Parts: sequence; C-alpha cells; structure tokens
Amino acid sequence: MRRRHPRAGDVGYDGAKPGRQAQVNRPTIKDVARRANVSLKTVSRVINNETSVRDDTRDRVQRAIDELNYAPDQAARNLRSATSHAIGLVYDNPNPYYVISVQNGVLAACHDQGFGLQIHPCDSTVPDLADELRDLVQRTRLAGLVLAPPMSERMELIRYLAANGIRFVRIISAAEDPDDGYPCVYVDDRDAAYDITEHLIQLGHQRIGFLWGGAAHRSSPERFKGYESALKDYDIPLDKKLVIPGDYSFDDGFRGARRLFALRDRPTAIFGSNDEIAAGVLAAAKANGIDVPYELSIAGFEDSPFSKQSWPALTTAKQATEDIARHAALRLIAELKPSGSGVAPVNRGFSPQLVIRDSTARAHKPAT
Amino acid sequence: MRRRHPRAGDVGYDGAKPGRQAQVNRPTIKDVARRANVSLKTVSRVINNETSVRDDTRDRVQRAIDELNYAPDQAARNLRSATSHAIGLVYDNPNPYYVISVQNGVLAACHDQGFGLQIHPCDSTVPDLADELRDLVQRTRLAGLVLAPPMSERMELIRYLAANGIRFVRIISAAEDPDDGYPCVYVDDRDAAYDITEHLIQLGHQRIGFLWGGAAHRSSPERFKGYESALKDYDIPLDKKLVIPGDYSFDDGFRGARRLFALRDRPTAIFGSNDEIAAGVLAAAKANGIDVPYELSIAGFEDSPFSKQSWPALTTAKQATEDIARHAALRLIAELKPSGSGVAPVNRGFSPQLVIRDSTARAHKPAT
Repeated sequence: MRRRHPRAGDVGYDGAKPGRQAQVNRPTIKDVARRANVSLKTVSRVINNETSVRDDTRDRVQRAIDELNYAPDQAARNLRSATSHAIGLVYDNPNPYYVISVQNGVLAACHDQGFGLQIHPCDSTVPDLADELRDLVQRTRLAGLVLAPPMSERMELIRYLAANGIRFVRIISAAEDPDDGYPCVYVDDRDAAYDITEHLIQLGHQRIGFLWGGAAHRSSPERFKGYESALKDYDIPLDKKLVIPGDYSFDDGFRGARRLFALRDRPTAIFGSNDEIAAGVLAAAKANGIDVPYELSIAGFEDSPFSKQSWPALTTAKQATEDIARHAALRLIAELKPSGSGVAPVNRGFSPQLVIRDSTARAHKPAT
Repeated sequence: MRRRHPRAGDVGYDGAKPGRQAQVNRPTIKDVARRANVSLKTVSRVINNETSVRDDTRDRVQRAIDELNYAPDQAARNLRSATSHAIGLVYDNPNPYYVISVQNGVLAACHDQGFGLQIHPCDSTVPDLADELRDLVQRTRLAGLVLAPPMSERMELIRYLAANGIRFVRIISAAEDPDDGYPCVYVDDRDAAYDITEHLIQLGHQRIGFLWGGAAHRSSPERFKGYESALKDYDIPLDKKLVIPGDYSFDDGFRGARRLFALRDRPTAIFGSNDEIAAGVLAAAKANGIDVPYELSIAGFEDSPFSKQSWPALTTAKQATEDIARHAALRLIAELKPSGSGVAPVNRGFSPQLVIRDSTARAHKPAT
C-alpha cells in the first residue's frame, strides 16, 4: 500500500536538534510551467491525466515536475475542481476484523488511485444520520462515500444522499443485483448460508439450531433464508424453537447456545450467523462440557481470522471482505475520475464460499 | 462519537426519484456577516473560537450561523490558515483489536475538537518512510500526525519529521518520560510485565517461559525487562532456554509454546508478550492435551477483547489503548488550536494494570 515518490532535492536525515522546526519551500505550478516552457493550463492537463496533450509536451512537463520535486497542492486542487481527493468510509460495525478488512480493501484502491481515506464510524440508528453525512461531505469536500452495511441498506438515507448530490457506492447483502439505480457491490449471503446448512444436513444432522445476526443488517434475513431453503429442499421441518434472535456478537452467540442447550431435544448442530456468534457458541459448549464436534457441530460465517484461530477451527463461509471493499472503492473512484479506475460501471456480485474445518462432523446421538 | 448539527432549512426525505442529483445552495460567511451585522473578520473569529469577541456579539453571530445552517468550508479554511482540519493516524500493526482501539480513541478526540481523521497504515520497515510521511502531510495538508509504534520509536524518523516542520505526537513504550523534546504519550510496559511475572511467582511457578513480541517495537524489550526484574527480585535464575524470540502474532505464540513443551524440564507457566501470542499458546496447549490452568498457566498482555473471549479467559494487563490514543490526539490538537483542547502540553504516562482471570492458577507438577 506504499506509494513511491520522487526524491530529488529532499531534506535528508541531518540530525537536526530536537524540537527545531524548519521552513519548507514548495515549488509551484508556475515553476513547472516556466521550466517546461508551457502554459499553466498545459501543466494542469498533464497533472490531471487529460488526453488532449501531445506526448513530447507531456514528457517535457513530467520531467520538469520530477526535477523540481513538484507535488500538486491537493487543497488548492480541491477548491478549483470542487471535489476533494479523499473519500469517506462510513460504517457501523462492532467487529474489528470485519472493519479492518473493509478499511484495507478501500485503502488498497485509494492508494492505487491517488486518494486519501477518511474513516467515519457512526451510529446507524440515529434519525439525523442523513444530515450528519451530508454535512461531513460538504465540510470536508469528500469526493464520495463508500457505505458499508447497515446504512448502505437504508433506502431513505440512500435517496436523500442522492438528492443532495453526494456520490457513493453501497456494499449490501443481496442474492441478486437490486437494479435500483444506485451503484452497489452485492454479497450473496443466502446462497452461502444454504451451502453451510446443506453441509450439516449431509453430515446427518436433522436438528440444526440457527442464531440470527442483528436485525438492522440485511445479511441477517438473507442468511436465515438460505438456512430455511436448505431445510425445505431436504424435507426437514423448520422447528421455531431452534431459531434464536440476537446480534452479531460473541455474547449473543454464548447466550443463544445456552438457550438451545436447555431444550429437551437439543440440536446436534448450530449455525451461527457469523464467526463471532459461532465463537460464543463454542465457548458455551466448552463451559457446558459439550464436546465439539463429537457431540455438537458448529458453523459460522465470514472466515474471519477468528475462525481459524479457535480450537477447533470453525467451518464457515469465506467472504473475501477485503476484495469486496476494494471493488466498491474502485467503483466509486470510477465515477470520480475522468480516466476511470479499471472497473466497469456496473453492479458486481460476490458469492462467499463454504470452508470446511474441524468444528463440523457427522451427527452422533447427544449425551443426555 | 456523533456530532449534532443545526437543522433549519434542510432538504428533507422527499422520496426523490432514484439517481436524480440536486444542486446544493450553500450559505457563505458573507451571508452570516450580513445577517449578524458584523464584519467578516468578526465571523471568522467566532468560528475559530478566538477569545477577542464580546459575548453579545458572539451570540448574535452564532444565532446567524444556526439560522442560516452555515457550515464553514473546510477546504477554503485550509488554504487561508495554511493548515488542514484533518489529522493523520500512522501505524503498522497486524492486530485488528489494537488498531480499532487506537482509531476509536483518536476519533473520539477528533469529533470533540472538530477534526477529520485520515488513516495511513504503512510498512514501518521501508527506508523512505520519512519521505512518504512528509509527502502525505504536504499533499493533503494534514494538520499533524499521531504516530503509533513502531514508527513512533524510530528516532531518525522523528527528527526528520520535526526538521520538515511536521507536527506530531508519539505513542511510545517507556518506563518514564523520555524528555527528549518531542511530544509523546508513554506506556509503562515494564512495570506491568513485572506485575504479571510476580503474580505467576506468587502462585508458586519457578519455571516461567517468556515469548517475545516483535523486535521493532520498544514494548518488547520493555516487557522482557519487567519479567527479568521480577525473576531477579525473587531470586529465580533466568533460564535462557525459557525465553523464545518471535512476533506479536497468534502463530508465533503457537510455535513458541511448542518449543517450550519440547523441553525436558517444561515451564509450568508461560508469559506471552501480548494476548495474541497468549492465544496461540492456549491453542498449542489444547492441541497437546495440556490442561490450562491445571498443568500450565498462561498470561498475556493488553486486555484485548480476545483475552476475555478465549476459554479459559486470559490473565493479562489492561492497557487502556483507546484512552492512550485519545490523549495523544488531544495533545496534538492542543498544539494546533489556539484555544487548546483541554489537555496540558506535557508528556503523560500510562500504567497498564494486572487483570487476573482463569488462565493462571497455582503451580502443579506437570504430567510427564
């Protein structure tokens, strides 16, 4: 993620005394124009990668830029072009692994394309969230926003941002392209949840618990639908007592599992809607002396590093969060730069893949 | 972390058709001056919280700002004041929990004080890191940087940034104020590591393994020194075979533990330099059928959520990472705003506190 920069004329490591602050002389666009013997407008065209410049002129300007170690003043460019060269990442998610993956994906795109990244975690449930985001973009002149779930899935917010002229791309959970006029990257949670449930059924499990993620996220009903469809296709009746509401958290996984363990006819497998929930289930099993996977199979979702580091390691669905976020940022930048960013201006779907690890195994009769 | 904004005259949720983009009319500083019947300069003084404005005048201007829903154009303010209203957070750390804690702490300070936050993870080992950071600050006009370890601990980088007129605050590991002329927040790792080791000794452990963190971080030798001092004070000879080099990672904890298990005279306790390492030790113990804490006590460091969610939960040192980061950001902002930020311009120290959980217990003879 590191960018290389020209080094001619830099201040070196000179062992300056602690605390002393030196003045910096910054070359201007006028210096470049003078050195290359062209107009200011021509220098500007070269800097902005416009196509209307002859090759030999472009080379001359670029050489002048390198020799002078000229770095365009982004704030000045911001004003002239009325857009900023930073984008904002907006999210509301308590899971550090997920957030870091999204940040890394967006950062990779930003670095490739010359943008800075401002992060803006917020509370997605507040009523004036739309005002907050609009003010953020206006005040700091962000070029656009990458919106992660769940705010990416609040349609009144989306319409409001569009009505205020704010560019954005959404990361959403959907089994197919929503085709609603708003750019997005969509993740097919439903299909992956079907695969996980089918895997458990094929191992012989008939009583499979399901722990919901937070209701504000569309991924929650999407993952439940996958579970529900798989049961239906294999003629296993859905037992509502096996389905527990909750949030995308370790604690809710722990609590949900304990409720399932208290049932007379316990499940032999539990599908937690993400790896954090599944980790909570695993801890609850250990606390109750239940052997995983011999007495209880556990599956999660997301393939966070968490899932690989637990004992046993968790069966899950690999979500490629970083790739998804990177693609969303490139899609946004494609809307912002005349030269594009290498991705087509169409919505793209991602399908998480089943990853089988040690936490799921053939069904056995549970110890009573 | 959410800021409230005035709402008079906002565009509402009007169910605009998908995809339509509307023009935005933004009130200017001139509108505010006219409405409050004051000069532009007076409005500017009120916005910048300068003290030279009479209370009744300030009230009149603030009322005009609220009624017009005026939001200062940050990019324009950037140019006039020659500083930006965003700070940069620079770090190189693979541990999501730590990174998120640092981000949250800095964000809390930024939100209180009206700054945006740009994140800049980078590779701290590259030779031209100094150029990269200097270019970053110049190009995006960041007001300053919060530097996390390990780059905060590279003195030639620190001197270089200062020589280039870049404002920063460092978060470093140190047992006392380094008093070297560069602002910092320092964390006393040594003392906390002493406490953890002492706790193990008091439980009866004589053979205590130690797994190092990454050598680039000063916290690594600082934590080792605490371990070493405690052994010395309790007259326990330091056995070099019990001290294993490595990195701040789960995998290195796993590998380091396996090396210790292979010793003829195994340790009855292992101190991992952070919770990720300790989690790796715990997984290795389980993989080897070693009961924790009955046969092996394990301690970590940092009190990451990780340490509470493992089974058994880890004894550790509570580092208050978020508070430390927040204080570092407030310290930086105090240098940037004429009105300060509420913290004094002195270096402040933090002392992580021992947290005893279920992974440490009295020493027993290990099964052979």
